[in-house]
Order: sequence, then C-alpha cells, then structure tokens
Amino acid sequence: MADTATDARWMGAALALAERGRGRTAPNPAVGCIIIRDDKIVGRGWTQPGGRPHAEAMALAEAGGAARGATAYVTLEPCAHVSSRGPACADGLIAAGIARVVIAHGDLDPRTNGAGIARLEAAGIAVASGVRRDEAARTLAGFLARQRLGRPFVTLKLGLSLDGCIALASGESRWITGPAARAHAHLERARADLIIVGRGTLDADRPRLDVRLPGLEARSPVRAVLGHGGAPDGWIGLDSPAAIAGTDALDVMVEGGAGAAAAFLSADLVDRLLIYRAPILIGGGKPGLADIGLVHLEDAHNRWRRHDARMLGIDRLEVYERVRE
Amino acid sequence: MADTATDARWMGAALALAERGRGRTAPNPAVGCIIIRDDKIVGRGWTQPGGRPHAEAMALAEAGGAARGATAYVTLEPCAHVSSRGPACADGLIAAGIARVVIAHGDLDPRTNGAGIARLEAAGIAVASGVRRDEAARTLAGFLARQRLGRPFVTLKLGLSLDGCIALASGESRWITGPAARAHAHLERARADLIIVGRGTLDADRPRLDVRLPGLEARSPVRAVLGHGGAPDGWIGLDSPAAIAGTDALDVMVEGGAGAAAAFLSADLVDRLLIYRAPILIGGGKPGLADIGLVHLEDAHNRWRRHDARMLGIDRLEVYERVRE
Repeated sequence: MADTATDARWMGAALALAERGRGRTAPNPAVGCIIIRDDKIVGRGWTQPGGRPHAEAMALAEAGGAARGATAYVTLEPCAHVSSRGPACADGLIAAGIARVVIAHGDLDPRTNGAGIARLEAAGIAVASGVRRDEAARTLAGFLARQRLGRPFVTLKLGLSLDGCIALASGESRWITGPAARAHAHLERARADLIIVGRGTLDADRPRLDVRLPGLEARSPVRAVLGHGGAPDGWIGLDSPAAIAGTDALDVMVEGGAGAAAAFLSADLVDRLLIYRAPILIGGGKPGLADIGLVHLEDAHNRWRRHDARMLGIDRLEVYERVRE
Repeated sequence: MADTATDARWMGAALALAERGRGRTAPNPAVGCIIIRDDKIVGRGWTQPGGRPHAEAMALAEAGGAARGATAYVTLEPCAHVSSRGPACADGLIAAGIARVVIAHGDLDPRTNGAGIARLEAAGIAVASGVRRDEAARTLAGFLARQRLGRPFVTLKLGLSLDGCIALASGESRWITGPAARAHAHLERARADLIIVGRGTLDADRPRLDVRLPGLEARSPVRAVLGHGGAPDGWIGLDSPAAIAGTDALDVMVEGGAGAAAAFLSADLVDRLLIYRAPILIGGGKPGLADIGLVHLEDAHNRWRRHDARMLGIDRLEVYERVRE
C-alpha cells in the first residue's frame, strides 16, 4: 500500500509517459503506464504509434519477473476486451502477478467501462482509481471527446497582438509572436492528429503546418483544408467543421485564419483556446476572428474558463477551456 | 541610522500616502511624507488638493516637537524654493530639527534639482536618496513627464474581449468586463486629472466618465473630448492629442473609443496601457484600436514592456509601459 502523495507522484510519471504517444495512437488513446516495486521503477510504457502495443504491455515486457507483487500506475482503466491486435491489458496485469493497480481515469468504452477494474479485483488485485483524474482527462481529451461527443477534441490556436490582430491590413504577419511561442505552438502541433487551416489561409500562405522541432520532425500531423474545392496532395479536404467526426483523429488543431476559426466556433466545435499573445499593438489590422454569429453580448459570457497561463519569452500563452456544464 | 530594509519599509508607507493626493494636486506633484522617531510614526502628510500645503509641511505639523531628531521619508526631493504659497520644505525640515531625510526620487525642477538635498546637508542633516526610486517614479509619473517631455503622463485604457473587440458589430458593449474590472478602472480614473474620449464615443454613448466608487465620488477628473466641434458644458475640447500639453493635467486617462486611442498612439503620446481583458470571444466585432499608421510589423515590436498583471474577478488586467530608451 502506498500513501496518497506517493500514488500522485508515480501517476505524474505515468501521465508524462502518456504524452509521449500523443498524436500518433489514434484511434486508440495515448496511455501511460509505470510499474513500481519497492519504490523503484521496474517498467515503463506508453501506447505505441498506431495504437499497439498498449502501455501496460510495454511496461510489463520491460518489468519481466519484477512485475510480480508490484504496483502498476495506468492513466486509463486497463482494457477488458481481447482484440485481434492483442490481449486484454487487465488479463496481462493479472498474469504478470501485479499486486495493485492505480488508475487515473475510467474508460467509457462499453467493452471496458468498469469491466477492467472488476476483472482485476476478481483476481485479487487491489485497485485505486481517480488519482489525478483531471490531468488524465486532459491527456485523454481526444479519446474522451470521441466517446462522449462522437468527434475529436478541438484546439483553436490564435497568435494575436494585444489588440487581437493576426496581421497588418497589408497581410504582413511575420512575425507577431517570437521564437519561444512559435516553438511551443509546434510542440502542440506534434500532439495533434490533424491540423486544419481555412481555404483562404491555404491559398494566401501555403503553410507547411509541420513540426519544426529537433527530433520531432516525424510527428507532423495530417493536414486538412476547410472549405469547398480540392485539397493539395496528401491533404484532407473538409467541407464543414462537422466533417472532423468522420476522420480518425483524436486531437485536432485549428490554426486559422479568422474564417476557419469562426466556422469552428460558430458550430461550437472548439474545446480549447491556445492564445499566444505578443506585447505589440497593430491597430486597424486583420482581426483574428470573423463573425461567429453572436447576437447578444451576454451570450458570450461563461463559455470559457482560463486553465493555464505562462510567459513564453516576451509573449504570453493563455489556455482557455470550453465550459460544458 | 536605519538599515536598508527599514528605510524601504517606511518609504513604502510614504509612497502609499502620496497616492492619496493623486489626481488633485496638479500642477504640483502628489508627494508623501512620513516622519519616524524611535521606530514610531510621529507625522504623516501628503500633498493637499490644489497642491498646497506640501506633504512635508503636513507631516511636520502633525509631528510638532516630536520631529526633533527624527527621520523624514519623502517620495520627492524637498523643494528648496520659497513660493508665495508657502515656505521651502527643505527649510521646514531644518527648522523642525529633523536629523535624517530619506528621499525616493530627485526633483528635476531647476529651482530644486539637488538644491533641496544640498541645503539639508549644509544644515548637518544626513540624506539618503534613491530609496524605492522606481516606484516613486510611477507615483510621480505625470510630474516627471511634465518636466521631461513638457506634457502629462498618458494612460490608455482598453476593455477588450480575447479577440480585441470593444463591442459587437451592432455597437452593444455592456458589458465586456465584470464589476471588479470596472471598479478598478474607476479607481484609475480617480488618479487622473483629465479623462478623454473621442467625439464618436461622446456622441454615441454620452459617457459620464465619473468615479462611481463609495467615498471617491468627488474625485472625478475633468472631462475632455478629442476632435473638432463643441464640448459639452464643463468639458474641455481638445483639437488634437498634443493639446494635452496646454492643460494643467499631470495624469491623463484616454478611455477610447478606437479612434481616440489610435490618435494618441499615432502621436506616440501613450505612456501606459491598461488592458482589462474579459474571457469572452466576440468575433467580427468592433476592434478596440483603429489604424495607428503601422507600416511594418517589426516596428510594432519592442515598444511595450509588461509591468504588471493581475486577475480582477474572471477578467485579467495587464499593464504595459512604453519603452523609451
């Protein structure tokens, strides 16, 4: 038995491992697992590209015989269903002789949804759940949005001046934000499965939308253009924001411009705002957001809750989450 | 002799006293003074409405005989010149038997500018200066701008949505920010001598521009309208932003709209930005800032430095200062 602080600490490590898979596991969730015996790490795993092997299988393979009597920390309830691509993780944990399993978030998949926990407990394994659940929900946001809403989790990125512009009236937009903010935005791209721009931005800027961070070049998401007309080679064409439901993506990043941002907001298909704000005034420039159909100011309130804020060089990042009561 | 921490602490109290006079002392600076003997406060003073009596005279009057051998903390170098409205403060401190004077900021007035310190030292008083100088410079911003630039210190207030709007396209603007942010903005008004709106805002909104905070109702600044044409009764008319130099004001607050804000920014007559940012998106609304004549994006950079930020309810205040190298 471990105390609460110890459980929280090891689950933090499992959550960090989970993030390693982000953006490459769809349609499977990016899960992290760490196996601890005598307060030492004996196995670590995270969901592999393409979604298999699962995190638990990776960690158990690393732990080998050391898993016997150990505690496994997993960010998502272990699956209880056998797939053609691998055995159920709950069975794997039981077979390895794991003594205790700590879970951050439940799996809403009807094939698991408590069945994973039940199978573990039936095998005599002690189970604790809900440890750092809110953080796990953020790591699993795309997977949970799929289960709850039947669509991916959508992040809208805006790089703005203090007065809310994304460019001068002339169209000049390089650069609003500095290198630290741009690097952070590229890291966010690496966590997405699908990245979307509007037709206007595609035609005007021909953006690469890739991940230009050393070591992460291979993690560029699939690119998509919103709006009627053809898509460039290798890109997906989306007729409307709702078309994201038909993709495999768990995490979607909308990169603009003002029209695409407004289209997703008008459809209430934005779950998270990433606002990179530069300490500059533009004045009379291109606004970051087109008409979203707002008729009364009171309807704009109580929709967004600030989740995080930090400085990135001289720019400031603010993260807002959609309030869904 | 006091140590540095003690000096800083008492100067903090003098700076707080100085703020009490803000907005009512023009053309004199709002100064604070506290007199300490045996680590106890024996006198406190701040510049009175209209600029006289000075802070030192108020504090000395309160201290009476207890001033002998005491230390006086003043936020501005004591004046060395006799005026028809009162004696020189340096002479007053000497006559009262003050043993030590601690000063935050020097007086650039050619009639003082070091002469106050010299007179104190000639009388055998120990003088320390530069204690919490940066904070004093902010309290004295209007006075110092007058001395250095021949014009008041100008604060531009912007109440914005995340996407930089001050209203819906329909003109609806009540409310963007919440009660805590609005109360803070009224406190800032109370510190100003002059408050300015553009002609468009005057005609559209007929704003009262008064201070609606309990106990501070009498501290509403003089109102002015920017732009040609008449001014309402009791208001000042300003043909251009530069006309502020011809007023008595030390501290000026520009409250909008987008055109007035742009006029002051275009003339590089804004020293400080107060941005009250609500966690809402408007989309396609009225931008907070009209064209400021920016031609190249690089010219927008390195002009504003973040000085302060805080939450006001669910809104966020960010304060930026103009970088003047």
